[in-house]
Amino acid sequence: MREDYSLQLDNLTRDLITMTKLVQTAMADATEALLTDNVTIAQKVIDNDRTLNELNAEIETRCIQITALQAPVATDLRFVVGAIRIATSLERMGDLASHVAKQVRLRFPNSSIPVELHPTFEKMGAAANKIVAATAHVIEFRDTGLASEIKDFDDELDSLHRKLFTAVLASNWSHGVEAAIDVTLLSRFYERFGDHAVTVARRITHIVTGEPYAK
Amino acid sequence: MREDYSLQLDNLTRDLITMTKLVQTAMADATEALLTDNVTIAQKVIDNDRTLNELNAEIETRCIQITALQAPVATDLRFVVGAIRIATSLERMGDLASHVAKQVRLRFPNSSIPVELHPTFEKMGAAANKIVAATAHVIEFRDTGLASEIKDFDDELDSLHRKLFTAVLASNWSHGVEAAIDVTLLSRFYERFGDHAVTVARRITHIVTGEPYAK
Repeated sequence: MREDYSLQLDNLTRDLITMTKLVQTAMADATEALLTDNVTIAQKVIDNDRTLNELNAEIETRCIQITALQAPVATDLRFVVGAIRIATSLERMGDLASHVAKQVRLRFPNSSIPVELHPTFEKMGAAANKIVAATAHVIEFRDTGLASEIKDFDDELDSLHRKLFTAVLASNWSHGVEAAIDVTLLSRFYERFGDHAVTVARRITHIVTGEPYAK
Repeated sequence: MREDYSLQLDNLTRDLITMTKLVQTAMADATEALLTDNVTIAQKVIDNDRTLNELNAEIETRCIQITALQAPVATDLRFVVGAIRIATSLERMGDLASHVAKQVRLRFPNSSIPVELHPTFEKMGAAANKIVAATAHVIEFRDTGLASEIKDFDDELDSLHRKLFTAVLASNWSHGVEAAIDVTLLSRFYERFGDHAVTVARRITHIVTGEPYAK
């Protein structure tokens, strides 16, 4: 029974890592679709989001079963409950990648972003990729050291988001209101993506240390 | 012990209702601040958001304790686990009210929204208020009938959000890019607020019926 239990917890960790990798692919693909106006890739991201939703629901069911049958305590209990929240955050990160992809599909065959903002969104994609790769590592190794660094990675996304605002509001912005709204919303999706990674990292720290969860 | 347990579950429901009422007040106040450029009310909304964050954390701790000590099953187990998610959604709705208030503070002493959009935001505020009042009722009475109607209330917010886009993109929009971004983001906060209410309503339906949770 206990061996079984330990395996169940390992599987939970494994599935959270799977979700994180899927999220990483989703955001990388969404960024590629955005930078190349590729509606095929965008559609793939949108279609694949269903898998993340299903995994989220499945993880919750499993956590409830483990709680009911195994009565976990201390760290294990924090993990089983925390896994539900982590899965929700990851699922939400998948939604945000899907939001980026939907914007590409909406504007196709036109481009979603003006060419001079390509470098900014390339950097956002890179920062998002770095943060989600770190998140997978934090989940797998319960690496609280790296968890605290994720906040710094997120600062990079916040700073890019602010920089984009400046570009859009500059007097030489020549793309009109609709493009301004588009790029601001897109940038916000990346920024929120980072926020959710920070939430996951904090949650892992709480699971490991048992210290109160700081929002 | 069982009496104690039943009381614990009642308290959980009571605290979720308390959170919902706080969220209702927060969004009503944020809307008032927005429509009257009242930075004092805006600041109150921002300050009070802390209470929602604390209640969310406290409810989670309590749900874990109940699960560990009382080993709930069936509906009760779904409720105890669902309460964690409901509290998170409500906390997020509070964040969105706070986002509206922060926008008011950011633009003060200027107005956050052009005067011709006042009626639209007034309607959004009213729709948000209606949806959150219904959410409180759904939680208190586990009213799955009303839960399914909440989706219709949310359609109203979505429709107002789309209408606002049309206004901002119209050729006679005279307020520039910054105001366009401001009102689009503000409108999005109301729209997301409604989405979270729908999530809570679906969660209650899942708790009552045990049917798979449809995202």
